[in-house]
Amino acid sequence: FKIFSLSSNPTLTHEVVQQLGCELGKSSVKRFSDGEIQVSIEESVRGCEVYVVQSTSQPGNENMMELLIMLDALKRASAKKINVLIPYYGYARQDRKARSREPITAKLIANLLETAGATRVITMDLHAPQVQGFFDIPVDQLLGVPIVADYFKAKQLEDVVVVAPDNGGVIRARRMADEMNAPIAFIDKRRPRPNVSEVMNIVGEFEGKNAIIIDDLIDTAGTITSAANALIENGANAVYACCTHPVLSGPAISRIDGSPIKELVVTNTIELPEEKLIDKITTLSVAPLVADAI
Amino acid sequence: FKIFSLSSNPTLTHEVVQQLGCELGKSSVKRFSDGEIQVSIEESVRGCEVYVVQSTSQPGNENMMELLIMLDALKRASAKKINVLIPYYGYARQDRKARSREPITAKLIANLLETAGATRVITMDLHAPQVQGFFDIPVDQLLGVPIVADYFKAKQLEDVVVVAPDNGGVIRARRMADEMNAPIAFIDKRRPRPNVSEVMNIVGEFEGKNAIIIDDLIDTAGTITSAANALIENGANAVYACCTHPVLSGPAISRIDGSPIKELVVTNTIELPEEKLIDKITTLSVAPLVADAI
Ligand SMILES: Nc1ncnc2c1ncn2[C@@H]1O[C@H](COP(=O)(O)O)[C@@H](O)[C@H]1O
Ligand SMILES: Nc1ncnc2c1ncn2[C@@H]1O[C@H](COP(=O)(O)O)[C@@H](O)[C@H]1O
Repeated sequence: FKIFSLSSNPTLTHEVVQQLGCELGKSSVKRFSDGEIQVSIEESVRGCEVYVVQSTSQPGNENMMELLIMLDALKRASAKKINVLIPYYGYARQDRKARSREPITAKLIANLLETAGATRVITMDLHAPQVQGFFDIPVDQLLGVPIVADYFKAKQLEDVVVVAPDNGGVIRARRMADEMNAPIAFIDKRRPRPNVSEVMNIVGEFEGKNAIIIDDLIDTAGTITSAANALIENGANAVYACCTHPVLSGPAISRIDGSPIKELVVTNTIELPEEKLIDKITTLSVAPLVADAI
Repeated sequence: FKIFSLSSNPTLTHEVVQQLGCELGKSSVKRFSDGEIQVSIEESVRGCEVYVVQSTSQPGNENMMELLIMLDALKRASAKKINVLIPYYGYARQDRKARSREPITAKLIANLLETAGATRVITMDLHAPQVQGFFDIPVDQLLGVPIVADYFKAKQLEDVVVVAPDNGGVIRARRMADEMNAPIAFIDKRRPRPNVSEVMNIVGEFEGKNAIIIDDLIDTAGTITSAANALIENGANAVYACCTHPVLSGPAISRIDGSPIKELVVTNTIELPEEKLIDKITTLSVAPLVADAI
């Protein structure tokens, strides 16, 4: 088989290729003067099993179109199987109609990938695991929890409590707590009456403990930093945070920098630009996990 | 029926709505912090026939994703028929495999539009009319030639010759010449031997005449300005140019400004930003034509 890299994750792709000792497929992605994408595959793929690595992270729409065009090219070049490795699946949060007349973009993306030629999808930590069912082709979802848990175990922190930053994150926190052999807590938000601001309440024991907040993704970092503040203000000893997908848009970096979070541990499903790699952030590679799944 | 506007052509959409005296559908397109598109439709479309207007012009990939997400939202909101008006169909030049292992992105786009929910497509001056056959749904292709020809007829130029800037443009030039009641000429480029530069030869009578060069689109303006130079150097009286789609990327504007082209007539299938509206450019509206097709 051959592995093709696109724009989003060149470093991860190289690591995976090295781990597997396989070939990196020759291809290039260029832009025409008007911004249209020109994909070219520079070696035969006829009858081959191919893997394409692309996260639909920022710039998500560009990365998505690039991926779809690459799939079209591979299909027309008679590749036998087209596996798409999407370390970060963009638009995963738009996975239901929360209001009337909303799109379900996560499902649209699934349809587009199949239409373009994907025959199998490998992805990591979907915002909701139900997104797997949006596809009619095989989907494998890998989990970042073991990688992150191993890192924290090696730190040998004492008196750890794993914290879910909202009610939706309790299942993920439970999984992490199992790996860490630690208890869990979660932040319970509720609105007492309409138009009254949310009340934040921490459910579980955390005073004097080292809290590790876990989420699937951190975007503007509002949720995670307000959770960190609440934990510290109410007596936690120290706060660590972790997630699989460091989206880190808008005010995220400055919020994290200014928060009581001691260290933020993320993975390389999204390749961070230099300016986001602040000292507090530790990046772990998912390459071994991904190589295993190939 | 209801007409929905997206980001690319708000002015054209307004003109069409005014011409038809119909409603502009209430909708909005916003961006989440990470650049993901959030479409919302703010009135019921259940059982309605809807039109969505969007050119996939620059930024083409963003405009394409916006359109696909809007179609998904309309489909899930139970619109009865979803007509897509794409004044400028981006990626139309990638309509064949010119080399091995190239994508056919114009066909991919057709498949994506159908997958997302389009039930009919209206577009203008496709780079090749064969793109209509890429769809399994009805496609109407409108032509800009009559609009542009009417404009030039009103100028009452004498001794006109319509010029195709390359061999591929002769059919379009013939149509324009019929409307103008004028003869045609064309620029014949050939490479005498491999690795020898192209020779440009103008076939037809043009000395002392007013030449009108016509093309479907002008992108970097290399073709059209070198044709204009050749015509003037060889004795044409004056050179005008026209096209349906003013892509005008990269060096286009400065090339046109510095060329012997007296006036460039374009249509509003692509809404030009302020800085591209130089004095030499005249824009004609396709709103009456489009309103007729609705
Ligand atoms: N890129 C995005 N950034 C922020 N919010 C989003 C994004 N995509 C979808 N959403 C919204 O996030 C909500 C889903 O998030 P959650 O409640 O955490 O599952 C939905 O109401 C979506 O409208
Ligand atoms: N956006 C674009 N800008 C410039 N050239 C393109 C673009 N899209 C496709 N092409 C190329 O243009 C050629 C087709 O143009 P034509 O020969 O005029 O039909 C093909 O070789 C394409 O690879």
